[in-house]
This record gives sequence, structure tokens and C-alpha cells, in this order.
Amino acid sequence: MPVITLLTDFGFKDGFTGVMRGVILTILPEVQIVDITHAISPQNILEGSLVLANTAPYFPPGTIHVAVVDPGVGTARRPMAARIGEQYFIGPDNGLFTGVIEAAEKAGDSMTFYHLNKPEYWLKEVSRSFHGRDIFAPVAAHLAAGVPVEKMGEPVTDPARIMIPRPEATIEGWAGQVLAVDHFGNLLTNLGPEHLSANKRVVIKVGEARIDGLVETFGEREPGSLVAMIDSSGVLEIAEVNGSAAEKLKVGSGTSVFLKNC
Amino acid sequence: MPVITLLTDFGFKDGFTGVMRGVILTILPEVQIVDITHAISPQNILEGSLVLANTAPYFPPGTIHVAVVDPGVGTARRPMAARIGEQYFIGPDNGLFTGVIEAAEKAGDSMTFYHLNKPEYWLKEVSRSFHGRDIFAPVAAHLAAGVPVEKMGEPVTDPARIMIPRPEATIEGWAGQVLAVDHFGNLLTNLGPEHLSANKRVVIKVGEARIDGLVETFGEREPGSLVAMIDSSGVLEIAEVNGSAAEKLKVGSGTSVFLKNC
Amino acid sequence: MPVITLLTDFGFKDGFTGVMRGVILTILPEVQIVDITHAISPQNILEGSLVLANTAPYFPPGTIHVAVVDPGVGTARRPMAARIGEQYFIGPDNGLFTGVIEAAEKAGDSMTFYHLNKPEYWLKEVSRSFHGRDIFAPVAAHLAAGVPVEKMGEPVTDPARIMIPRPEATIEGWAGQVLAVDHFGNLLTNLGPEHLSANKRVVIKVGEARIDGLVETFGEREPGSLVAMIDSSGVLEIAEVNGSAAEKLKVGSGTSVFLKNC
Repeated sequence: MPVITLLTDFGFKDGFTGVMRGVILTILPEVQIVDITHAISPQNILEGSLVLANTAPYFPPGTIHVAVVDPGVGTARRPMAARIGEQYFIGPDNGLFTGVIEAAEKAGDSMTFYHLNKPEYWLKEVSRSFHGRDIFAPVAAHLAAGVPVEKMGEPVTDPARIMIPRPEATIEGWAGQVLAVDHFGNLLTNLGPEHLSANKRVVIKVGEARIDGLVETFGEREPGSLVAMIDSSGVLEIAEVNGSAAEKLKVGSGTSVFLKNC
Repeated sequence: MPVITLLTDFGFKDGFTGVMRGVILTILPEVQIVDITHAISPQNILEGSLVLANTAPYFPPGTIHVAVVDPGVGTARRPMAARIGEQYFIGPDNGLFTGVIEAAEKAGDSMTFYHLNKPEYWLKEVSRSFHGRDIFAPVAAHLAAGVPVEKMGEPVTDPARIMIPRPEATIEGWAGQVLAVDHFGNLLTNLGPEHLSANKRVVIKVGEARIDGLVETFGEREPGSLVAMIDSSGVLEIAEVNGSAAEKLKVGSGTSVFLKNC
Repeated sequence: MPVITLLTDFGFKDGFTGVMRGVILTILPEVQIVDITHAISPQNILEGSLVLANTAPYFPPGTIHVAVVDPGVGTARRPMAARIGEQYFIGPDNGLFTGVIEAAEKAGDSMTFYHLNKPEYWLKEVSRSFHGRDIFAPVAAHLAAGVPVEKMGEPVTDPARIMIPRPEATIEGWAGQVLAVDHFGNLLTNLGPEHLSANKRVVIKVGEARIDGLVETFGEREPGSLVAMIDSSGVLEIAEVNGSAAEKLKVGSGTSVFLKNC
């Protein structure tokens, strides 16, 4: 039986995610439900999209990801299911799947999208503000129980996409930005190995700081040092050893990061 | 095999809920354990009662809910189990089940309560400060494993109840209050559809704000607008579109909310 | 099939722990994964060690604990697995298992340690900054799937250990310290029943406060009172009834606690 994952901006205090689990288990009592996170910043579709794209590849084929960051709930935005590569994604059609779609395009994976419009697979009463409970959770459970996704929606070819900011070439190198700050205060950027020149020394500027060269691991420098490295998700990360670069530099998502190959 | 849910004010940092899961899995290795929340405000029985009442109905018949918000742990307050409708509830007899009991009364569901007083179904050593681990978790596991609840306690008919604040009629309408603030900063009130008059316009006053009319969904107004709506749990909610009404209005649980049908 | 637990300092927002679950479920789809906590203070090996030691004993024999608080990830510190008593522990060899090791020494339990050095049981690509995903999660899954721990590493006899602060005898009693502050603001000390004298009254001093005698449970005193008690993990705890002793006294980990038997 496939695993169902949950990724939301619902937080942990209200029982919203407990309700979604209850709905799923009522339909399919033995399915395994795994939290990816419920601490996406409220309404932050970009952040949700990035975490989902970083996480989904580590789950087995057949996994059903339910992702709900849904400022437009109850409006005309479509409820959607997607088969992308060998996994399923269920949630609002608001760009939340952009990161996964881009990765699939790069990898040449097949993708099919469905506008979920068959209320017989939803809860009987559908609210205007909690589709995670009323539409997405039941659809995920039915899918895990074996209902083909084609029966639950009409194919569409125009999933919503958001702009994921790209680095721009400068005279000296690249101007990128901080896309996210992780739990440790590490700055995750939209720069990566493709922006480095072999045989050249790299200099990175962010906020007030200038970092010379990359390290391979935190332990190469003393606690308190600022370092830059290609992190475990393959992007350029700026970190303070045993500290928070975000706090030290007073920067966050959106801050410019300049990379120069000297 | 039934699902066991956990709802506590234990937070996430100390391993308290991990310990409860360990105790349950030692008795019944394959049972599925689902978190409702562990972020109930410390010792806030009312908040726990409301979240439990909103969440439990979405779980399947036979579900065993373990709820622990327990400022009186170790005192004379009884450990309790209840069969309410088709589900079980286990925790301190301090009013935590009031919301569920009221819903059952409304629905005409049967209820039976048991004073848990058979230590042979508890951990061998019972502390005076952690009955979640020592009494409630093992009783839940034994119940899931098939031990009848009647064997683990004596029937009682006087479960503790707390006062859930009710709106009062005013000359112009109703005076209610904010019962809870959710993760998004939305204000959940004790007002609902039963306080609205058909064919009349409603005006809501809370803190410094006055809100004219209800919306059906957040997307009807611009980000930053204050709106009022009947939310997904069926109560009157005051929200800031894509923001936090609690922060905007600097209000919280207990704040008065006035509703006028004009 | 054994349970796998996770204890980390990864927090809840980034999907790091979701990734670990994905890796485990890809190798062994039906295994049950239980969170102990992901809110260990960043890089705080002592805190992780204490929570693990308090929690592990409540899990069944055969349980596989994956613990990752890993400031030295990517350096020479060894990846390690340990069989301690009837359970397994997997994580960095940096002292994180000290609490469990000390408890096993006291109980006379057997212990065997293994330097994990067989990359065929890891993810194919191993990053320098996320061994939780690349080494520890896959090793745990293979172990749960039946691969003997001996096949995944070489036996070693010198696991890293950290100093857990001990109380010192004074003329009048003992000088201990606060080891941890729990979710409720209770102060957990390194003092315990072994530092009390039978038939003597005990006086405890911490910060500005002086507490006369122990209580057996919070309910013996009024809300707001400071109390001392032997808590559910068997250590001396200082608490404010229905409040936070840490906030009231403005103290935290490392604060001195003096105990006098009069």
C-alpha cells in the first residue's frame, strides 16, 4: 500500500492535520501517513514548493503527496491531482507543484494533471475554507485504496506555476538570492555548482559579509565562522558554523547573494 | 485494529510524547498512533476540549483518543475512560471531555464513563506527575488490544465538566467571545449560524474593528482585509485575509465579540 | 518488525525529517517510524543525550533509535551503531549516546559498538552535511529489514563520551545544576533521591529562590507556588505550579542548584 505524505502551512496547535489524518484513516484504515512538514510559513507557496521538491525524490514510487498551502481556498482555483514521474501530488492548483514540475522537466519524467471535479470522492459536505480536509485528504485516501486518478478528475494541461527566482549573470559572476532560511539559520540560495567556474576561486557576498572560497563541511572552520558550501540538496548554502547565519547577518529570504569567480 | 490518537499540552522538545508512544508500542507493537496536537497551551483544559471536540468526529468508529491536559495530575482527580458514541476517550477526569460530551448530548449519542482504577493495566510504577505515560497510554494500548473497557474501571455517572462560555443575548443581537486563536491568527468565536437572522445584514464588532457582513471565503476580499465567515468547523470566525487577525487587532481568547443583525 | 525512532535537532520546517522517513520507507515500506523529538536545541549533544536516555527505556526490545545531533558531520567523527541491552542506537559517534551508555553500565547491560563503514548500506551519494539522510536512515532501515549490524560496521570499543555534569558534595549538602528546562519551564536537575537524607528536611536554593521541602505532586500547592519534587524521570525537579519556573526565576540550563539536608 502506498505511503501518503502531508505538507501544509497548518502548524501544529489546532488539530487541522489530525483531522486530515482522521479523514484518511476513516477511508483507508491501515495506510501509513507521514508528515513532511506543517510549518511552511502561512500562505507561502514558494516555500512549500521548494520543500516539496527537495523532499519528494526520497520517497518510494507510488507515494501520494498531499500538499496544502492554499491562500485561494474556496475561490475558482482548481483542486488538482498530478502524476509526476512515479509519484502522485494532490493539492490546490496554485503553483505549489512548480518545483516538482521543474525537476520532472529536467529529468524528462512524464506528467499528467487532473482537475479534481468528482465530488463523490470528497467528504459529503465541502467547506469553503478547508479543502485539505474535505477534498484533498479523501482523494488521497481513495487513490491509495486503488481508485484510478482518472476517475476522480478531468485531465488538464495547464497547471498553475509560480516564478522561482533565477540568478542573473553579472559582469563578474552571478547575482542570486536567498530562497529560504532553514531551521539552523542556514541561507539556501538559488545558486549552485553550475554557477562556479572550475579552477577559479569563488568569492561570495551577502549582506555585510564576504566569504572567500567554499568549504566541504562545517567542521573545516571554527564555530562562529561564516562558510559557504554546496549543501545536501545541491545548492549553495551560507552558514555559520554551529550558529545561525540568518541571525548573524540579519538577512532572510529575498536577500541578494553575489558570486564572483576570480 | 483501532487507531490511537494523542492530544496533549506536552510540546515537542522533551520526548514526553515519544515515551507515550513507546509504552503503547511495547504493549501492542503494530497499532497506528496519530498525533492530533501536542501544542495545547500548558494546562489549558478549555482549549484542549475544543480541539478534541472539533477533531474526533473525523476519526473512524473504534478510535481511541488519549487526551492529556492535566494540571491536577497526582491529586484526587480520577483517571477516566469514556465510550462516547462509537469512540473511546482516555484521560484525566477534569473537564477535558466536555466538548465531546456536549456534542454527544446534541446528537443523542450514548455515553458511558469509567473510573480507571485497575492498576494491573498500568505501568508497574506509577509516578505522581506523568499519568500520560503510566496510566493513560497503557490503558489505551490494552483497549486497542481487545481488553474491554469495563475490565479496566468502574462505571461512574458524574464526569467532570468545565463551563464553555456561551454568548448572551443583547438588545441588538449577541455578545459572544473569542474562544481560540488558530495557527493563522484567525479568531474562533462561540457565535455561529444560530445567532444570525435570515434576511438581515450582520455587523460584527471585535476590538477596534467593525466588520459588515459575512464572506463565504477568504478570496472574496483583498489581502489585509478583515473578514468574518462561518468557518470549516461551523463557527463564526474573524480573519485577516492572508494575515493574522489576532495580531492586527491585538486580541485573543476571551475578547468580546458583538454581533448585531440589522 | 521493529520500530524505528527518530531524535534530531532538525526542527519541523524544512522537511529534513520527512526526507529521512522517505529514505527509510523506500528501503522498508511497512516499518513503523516514531518521532521522539526534533526540537533538541541545535548542536546540543548533552540535551539530545539526556532526552534519549529518558525515552529509550520505554520502547520495546529490538527498537532501533536513530539519533542525529551532529555538529561534526562530514569530519572524521565516525558514523556509529550500537547494540545496548536489547535495543539499537544509530548516529554520530560524538557522545550522543553517553546517557544511554551510563544507564546500561548501571544496569549491567551488554554493549557492542560498530563503526559504520560499509557504504553499500548507505545512499549511493553521501553528502558531507546530511548523514541522517545518507547514512543513518538507510542503515536503520536495513537493520530493521534483518541485515545484521555486524555486516554494516566494524566492532570498536571506544565510543565517544561527553561529560554529564555531576553534583559535588558541599559542607551542607550538594551543589548540582539545572541540566535541562522542559516544555513547561520545569527545571530538571542532576540531583536525585540519592542526595536526600532520610528523616531530614531538605532545603533547595536556585537563583533567588529557596524552597523548603519536597512535594509529591503539583496539586499540593497553589498555582504560582514554586515546588521541588522527584519527577517522573526520577530526578529532582523545580517547578512553578501551573507556570514556568524558568521564567519566574530567569534561570536555565547550567544554573547552580544547592541542596541542603537539615
